[in-house]
Amino acid sequence: MKERKIILPEKDMPRKWYNIQADLPTPLQPPLNPSTKKPASPDDLSAIFPISLIEQEVSTERWIDIPEEVLDIYSTWRPSPLHRAYNLEKALGTPAKIYYKQEGVSPAGSHKPNTAVAQAYYNKQAGIKRLSTETGAGQWGSSLALACNYFDLECTVYMVKISYHQKPYRRSLMEVWGADVYASPTDMTQSGRNVLADNQDSLGSLGIAISEAVEDAAGNSDTNYSLGSVLNHVMLHQTIIGLECQKQFEMVNDYPDYVIGCCGGGSNFAGISLPFIHDKIRDDKPVRAIAVEPEACPTLSKGAFTYDYGDVAKYTPLLMMHTLGHDFMPPGIHAGGLRYHGMSPIISQLCTDGLVEGRAYGQEGVFEAALTFARTEGILPAPETAHAIKCAIEVALECKESREEKTILFNLSGHGHFDLTAYDDYLAGKIKDVDYPQELIDQSIASLEKIK
Amino acid sequence: MKERKIILPEKDMPRKWYNIQADLPTPLQPPLNPSTKKPASPDDLSAIFPISLIEQEVSTERWIDIPEEVLDIYSTWRPSPLHRAYNLEKALGTPAKIYYKQEGVSPAGSHKPNTAVAQAYYNKQAGIKRLSTETGAGQWGSSLALACNYFDLECTVYMVKISYHQKPYRRSLMEVWGADVYASPTDMTQSGRNVLADNQDSLGSLGIAISEAVEDAAGNSDTNYSLGSVLNHVMLHQTIIGLECQKQFEMVNDYPDYVIGCCGGGSNFAGISLPFIHDKIRDDKPVRAIAVEPEACPTLSKGAFTYDYGDVAKYTPLLMMHTLGHDFMPPGIHAGGLRYHGMSPIISQLCTDGLVEGRAYGQEGVFEAALTFARTEGILPAPETAHAIKCAIEVALECKESREEKTILFNLSGHGHFDLTAYDDYLAGKIKDVDYPQELIDQSIASLEKIK
Repeated sequence: MKERKIILPEKDMPRKWYNIQADLPTPLQPPLNPSTKKPASPDDLSAIFPISLIEQEVSTERWIDIPEEVLDIYSTWRPSPLHRAYNLEKALGTPAKIYYKQEGVSPAGSHKPNTAVAQAYYNKQAGIKRLSTETGAGQWGSSLALACNYFDLECTVYMVKISYHQKPYRRSLMEVWGADVYASPTDMTQSGRNVLADNQDSLGSLGIAISEAVEDAAGNSDTNYSLGSVLNHVMLHQTIIGLECQKQFEMVNDYPDYVIGCCGGGSNFAGISLPFIHDKIRDDKPVRAIAVEPEACPTLSKGAFTYDYGDVAKYTPLLMMHTLGHDFMPPGIHAGGLRYHGMSPIISQLCTDGLVEGRAYGQEGVFEAALTFARTEGILPAPETAHAIKCAIEVALECKESREEKTILFNLSGHGHFDLTAYDDYLAGKIKDVDYPQELIDQSIASLEKIK
Repeated sequence: MKERKIILPEKDMPRKWYNIQADLPTPLQPPLNPSTKKPASPDDLSAIFPISLIEQEVSTERWIDIPEEVLDIYSTWRPSPLHRAYNLEKALGTPAKIYYKQEGVSPAGSHKPNTAVAQAYYNKQAGIKRLSTETGAGQWGSSLALACNYFDLECTVYMVKISYHQKPYRRSLMEVWGADVYASPTDMTQSGRNVLADNQDSLGSLGIAISEAVEDAAGNSDTNYSLGSVLNHVMLHQTIIGLECQKQFEMVNDYPDYVIGCCGGGSNFAGISLPFIHDKIRDDKPVRAIAVEPEACPTLSKGAFTYDYGDVAKYTPLLMMHTLGHDFMPPGIHAGGLRYHGMSPIISQLCTDGLVEGRAYGQEGVFEAALTFARTEGILPAPETAHAIKCAIEVALECKESREEKTILFNLSGHGHFDLTAYDDYLAGKIKDVDYPQELIDQSIASLEKIK
């Protein structure tokens, strides 16, 4: 009988996160204050973030200790298993070895709690009583609800109104963990009231929900804001994924030629790939890191690398990143977690420097790959995750063609238990590739302010 | 940092199931042919079951080899982790040690695939092309769909019509794994057509769905029927759970004083408890096995121990078991998996012989326990599973009172990702205890045929 799961003992869980800012060939450009357009100072950020996270945001220390309290909570589900996908390999007839890291085993069902728990911890340490955040489909909101529950923090989630009503399961999950969830736009913030004054029936958007959450945090001294992707400290916390993988590959005396993750704001891709990119930069390992996006929101593949805002209302600092423009409205694809106009500055810089490749796929092929995976490996993946699976299958089939026994690693970033409506639509033949006209992307990018 | 998870290496997974029929103080009464009321012969059963499963049903061999092909599929998620519930212990302030076996990690989200995979394997070996079964909420149907997918068998699921429409997610999951799912009553079977002739708008019931699935199997030589609980071979396959627990307790040098599981037809409770009851019978271990039921369907606590049918239509053999009467209609509680009128003959006999205790709890306390668990250990349990949690908490609080450092083990038989509507209702104060008038139970039992 073949061993299918490579299990790292709890006692061997990594004790430090890896900070790639120590090793970037090109240092990151600083975030800019949205009013002055000058580099943002720590003071600009301290109204909504604790100083410890602001420090992590700019640190160039290579290794950062994971606090004991965070490790203790990680250990309720970590280390996560690394699976060898024997069934999938056999079904594809590929000589390639396919591995996947199972991040769906966390209580919230994705990799998101890796940073949620850390952020809740640092905010608790700073004496904060409550965290506010936004959520679309609810993956991030439920992870932060879980994390706040562990540290006895209150949690306020502004959930995009249309999701609040269409995806009640994720909302219930947040409430089970004690969070207060509001359908955004609300009448509790000025930005929410402004939207409602314009349109009483607004269904909301992630941009509006971010504005509400930031306003809530900025206006209450006991409250901070928490973000689930894009920022450097989020990427940092997620590196536990790739660091575990490295130890697990050692256990089976293997090493990946390809590291693949889906990419929305960048956090799960960064989590699995940055420790391997460390090896590529420092030890010249020939590993290829592939960030996979939907064709309908091709930030890395077709976006500009420039300064842009994180939200529609321009409340957030300007970040130097790949962007489709903060006004870009991606089509309503099912992988909601990949619909963001921007991208992690770290991943953007790595892509510009040729250390990360972007690939984009259409929805139909992505769901086909998801079904192939569910029917071979058993596990139902989230539609976001299925983008990584699609790419892994493509690479494995290239290996079949070339008869190369390459090692492929992808991040199974989350399960699809709350996404069955999307599978239903796919099985009913209702999911089609959605292309976004290049001229609209060009237009959205052209309208960005030029920052000197 | 405390170790929270006790992980058994894949290579140490048990290679044999434990058959308690070798050790029962009182041998089981035989099943009876529903027409003749004489002991059913293997021939009576061979129209719908393969001979290998019929043999397991009556075997008194203590140890039965798990086929290599079944072990190979088990290894996609097994051995499942044994967790030490440090957070829950702390929240309760109990000196007791609480452990839970995490069966929610299977692709279908519960312990059910342990037998589904075995049944699919034996049917495949027997040359069968298709399995038929019934499902209520869909836990069992999705497990059999998964298992048939692994062995390239067709799978036909008769899903109670009201669930088919109210719980589309479980239906989608079955379809993802390639099963054909029909809303029962259908017009594809005589029993379905009979019901529809009486009432075109019938919402269906488990009793009707069983009749359809059995009729389908009996009438097609390439098709067999598969049942997810009650029968002896199902209990046998589930013993992998308890056998793993025994090895895991050895790893931490501990042993349970209490083994607790929720109990509908008996399969997850049997799975975790039978290997420990083996130790109690043979080695005089003072372990207490507690089967937990809803007050609204108290089969072990208030049912008669007598011969009864498994279904409303009286198609199935008569089994000697605890029963509330095959006409008993339990109230529509949220733990649908515990609404069965009958009980595994093995568990029934063990209860009669004092080796198993039954306990019943009301819904409100059960959901309160579920929330306590979700907010301490993070994991969202299925409402069925929450019955076991309620009992474990009660025992732990008794230990607090008596200052005894007992060791408690319960089976986390499944996650609640598809049950969030029930949690929603609980959080909205809509879940109340449902008592069933004793006279109605007495009446249902009194109406049973007397078999000599």
